Amino acid sequence: MPFLFPDHPTIGIFGFGAFGRLTAMHLADHFPLLVHDINPDAVSACVSAVTPGNIRAADSINVAKCDIVILAVPVTEMRALITRISPHLRAGAIVLDVGSVKMEPARAMLEGLPNHVDIIGTHPLFGPQSARDGIAGLKIAICPVRGRKFRRIAAFLRHVLRLKVFVVTPDEHDREAAVVQGMTHLIAKVLVRMDPLPVRMTTASFDLLLKATEMVRYDAPSVFWAIENANPYAGAVREQFFELAMGVRDQLAGDKCAVVTVTAE
Amino acid sequence: MPFLFPDHPTIGIFGFGAFGRLTAMHLADHFPLLVHDINPDAVSACVSAVTPGNIRAADSINVAKCDIVILAVPVTEMRALITRISPHLRAGAIVLDVGSVKMEPARAMLEGLPNHVDIIGTHPLFGPQSARDGIAGLKIAICPVRGRKFRRIAAFLRHVLRLKVFVVTPDEHDREAAVVQGMTHLIAKVLVRMDPLPVRMTTASFDLLLKATEMVRYDAPSVFWAIENANPYAGAVREQFFELAMGVRDQLAGDKCAVVTVTAE
Repeated sequence: MPFLFPDHPTIGIFGFGAFGRLTAMHLADHFPLLVHDINPDAVSACVSAVTPGNIRAADSINVAKCDIVILAVPVTEMRALITRISPHLRAGAIVLDVGSVKMEPARAMLEGLPNHVDIIGTHPLFGPQSARDGIAGLKIAICPVRGRKFRRIAAFLRHVLRLKVFVVTPDEHDREAAVVQGMTHLIAKVLVRMDPLPVRMTTASFDLLLKATEMVRYDAPSVFWAIENANPYAGAVREQFFELAMGVRDQLAGDKCAVVTVTAE
Repeated sequence: MPFLFPDHPTIGIFGFGAFGRLTAMHLADHFPLLVHDINPDAVSACVSAVTPGNIRAADSINVAKCDIVILAVPVTEMRALITRISPHLRAGAIVLDVGSVKMEPARAMLEGLPNHVDIIGTHPLFGPQSARDGIAGLKIAICPVRGRKFRRIAAFLRHVLRLKVFVVTPDEHDREAAVVQGMTHLIAKVLVRMDPLPVRMTTASFDLLLKATEMVRYDAPSVFWAIENANPYAGAVREQFFELAMGVRDQLAGDKCAVVTVTAE
């Protein structure tokens, strides 16, 4: 750690939802953390109940003054937050977000944050469910938006937290995520609505579908919203899915006719 | 084994496709097997290449004369096969199928097989992919159609092959399978058509979807056909899936409008 951050930086986290908490849990061993959420009760209750000493609730100005500032709020609230904290950010600070899409937050940060901070988009490709047994080996996308300090962040994620780090552009990220997350959440959404699903005479492949569904079904609605609507590529992927599904449907209808013919011979 | 089958029965298998071979592989340690396929070359090549001594290719009459006769042909070919073998079946024999649906094969066997044989529908809820590391702990559905000898078969599957056995009616089976297999194969079919799918910045849940897809994508077309068209409940499940998917689509379109409004304020 000292070789990566000889200055012993403080970290401020805005937003203490499922992902803010997960982030705090994995950083608390390495940095002093200050946390702010619009609901201060939720933060203090959670900080005292779940986590060790290194995490403190603080007002937004003090959180904004940290050396590294993490925006863990829904994508829809990002611009308002940026406007609020920008006057308080230190020169040389690093600001990063952890949203499920990267193009829109990158744009919002680039437009709204002062020139004296570095900007990084990050997307940890896991959540509370998939990180239950630890995060080593899990994946994270890093999008350098401004400045060169992303190298140290990437090195920390790679060598200390043992994540698989992909350094990509926001556009590259959103193109892939449109399929990866768009499909997973869409399919899960539909399967959840088919409840109760069979659990008895299941196949291995159906069990995998159920497991995938369980992993995302409790994600905050804002996550689903961001994945499906704040990713500019998601709509086209979704339409492709619906079109292909309809193609399979038509094909099956055709098959049925063909079989009737065969049977009649 | 002697306590279950003191008479040392022979087993005949009709159809040496992916599932006939899998069946043979797991029964060859326990019974002498005779195998027949419409393509005799495929059988003999496969028997000599893959499997140990206990399996022999034979003509259909000799296979039909075995004590236990397994129909491992596509559901669409079941009735023709039944007509062909019925005159040769021994009194007291057990005939069972291994199709992915159970109502139609049960009806075909009940209508076409002579009264002097027991009839069992079975559906091993696994395939060559999921059985790669052995079949202990995997699931099989058993539908007694005529006679009481299914008890011995179920005991063998449970205690010797260590499968999880579900004894159900063909109707109960097809209702569950319509969702379990219908959904898995439909989703896999659509995802396969979206190839190339991302493999780099994937989430754990997307990896599970891909794994589920890989497990079924190489299944014979006749398996997909049977699952989607020979199961009387599959059509309704499919329509439900499409309807729910369209609901999600409309909801997302509505969300988009709502957000535009919020942004405009």
